[in-house]
Amino acid sequence: MQFTSERRLDDGVLEREFTLGEIPGILWTPGSAPAPLILLGHPGGLHKMYPRLVARARHSAAEGFAAATIELPGSGDRPRSAAAEEARADLRRALEAGEPVDEEIVDQLVLPLVDKAVPEWRAALDALLSLPEIGGPVGYAGGVIAIGMRLAVVEPRISAALLFAGSFVPRTMFEEARQVSIPLQVLLQWDDEGNDRQLALDLFDAFGSKEKTLHANMGGHTGVPQFEGDDGNRFFARHLK
Amino acid sequence: MQFTSERRLDDGVLEREFTLGEIPGILWTPGSAPAPLILLGHPGGLHKMYPRLVARARHSAAEGFAAATIELPGSGDRPRSAAAEEARADLRRALEAGEPVDEEIVDQLVLPLVDKAVPEWRAALDALLSLPEIGGPVGYAGGVIAIGMRLAVVEPRISAALLFAGSFVPRTMFEEARQVSIPLQVLLQWDDEGNDRQLALDLFDAFGSKEKTLHANMGGHTGVPQFEGDDGNRFFARHLK
Repeated sequence: MQFTSERRLDDGVLEREFTLGEIPGILWTPGSAPAPLILLGHPGGLHKMYPRLVARARHSAAEGFAAATIELPGSGDRPRSAAAEEARADLRRALEAGEPVDEEIVDQLVLPLVDKAVPEWRAALDALLSLPEIGGPVGYAGGVIAIGMRLAVVEPRISAALLFAGSFVPRTMFEEARQVSIPLQVLLQWDDEGNDRQLALDLFDAFGSKEKTLHANMGGHTGVPQFEGDDGNRFFARHLK
Repeated sequence: MQFTSERRLDDGVLEREFTLGEIPGILWTPGSAPAPLILLGHPGGLHKMYPRLVARARHSAAEGFAAATIELPGSGDRPRSAAAEEARADLRRALEAGEPVDEEIVDQLVLPLVDKAVPEWRAALDALLSLPEIGGPVGYAGGVIAIGMRLAVVEPRISAALLFAGSFVPRTMFEEARQVSIPLQVLLQWDDEGNDRQLALDLFDAFGSKEKTLHANMGGHTGVPQFEGDDGNRFFARHLK
């Protein structure tokens, strides 16, 4: 893990870009004392997602959490995969035509992404947990719910997850959902037209966790109410502190 | 409105029993300064419900809210109605036999209750708002969701409602749900076997409010997690302060 830039934000949070092999990432730390870490999931494209990611990281830092994210395989400046690009184009065509998205398209898009991204997140976790500023339990917060789910199942260092409900979950991953046992909070935008609400509810039902909470709100795909940021902090404060 | 008893709880909250005509009720106030008021809904039976009601009232008082409740028609020490008793017996028989509850039973049980209880809650509100210790906006929190819904529609002094999802909502009241426009938070116990989850989700969908939030949790019918009490306080703090 190599730090490539460093700047202090006006609220005192230290923002450092890093690379882990070919994977770019960003780490935000609230201070020099060891802080619990929240991994910030996102749909890919660090540059495009930066404004939302830094806002989430600062919000977490205000509660004493460090936050980190890495670029997804095939997104941002990372090399494209021909198969993923093809699946993405199929998905775009279906969405633009207003057609239901074929399960096969979802499988081709999401399953290889999860298989590739999850070991990368785990490698990032190894590197991040070796830093003196990071200590204590780890949470995962954000989108590509299929990645968050797989991480929750295979990575014992993740103690709690705040998952953003999204449509593109392969049906074969429902069996995996039943294996999730850590505390979960699931955010669902009720009136998100691009989202399959019933699938999100079925997935929430499938999660094996004894403590799971669903928060459904209005406001469309990107209109998650601001108070959910505070609720997320409190969820992690209950489980990571 | 006649106060019939008064005692100071150990956290300084003043608890006063009152009667409003034939209707008994309880008022909890956090201090002498005018406080926003939360009406505590419940399924009827003040004595039986007292431990849970006083816990909710003290939790609200800690955030600076007054809280009040009244007995429902036909519950507790209030005179029974023959028709309501018959509908209640029909409901009990259906539940004990594990049969689906007929819509007619729900209509016979809930519609007259709502018609009778809502004017009583409004009369209580008149009396409570004339007290110097009560001031500012009013919220409704609790069960008999059909009563909370009707109050939200007809009573302009209620600014926000925290509703506990329950099965027994007459289908004819879905049209009324669309007329609700105040901010709502709906609590649903996901694994409550006595609750029709799909009906609760349909009802949440039907509410006309632009700001509505659904919180679904595990823990069975009476197992609402403790953190929801804090979340409820924050919901009312956003809308009543």
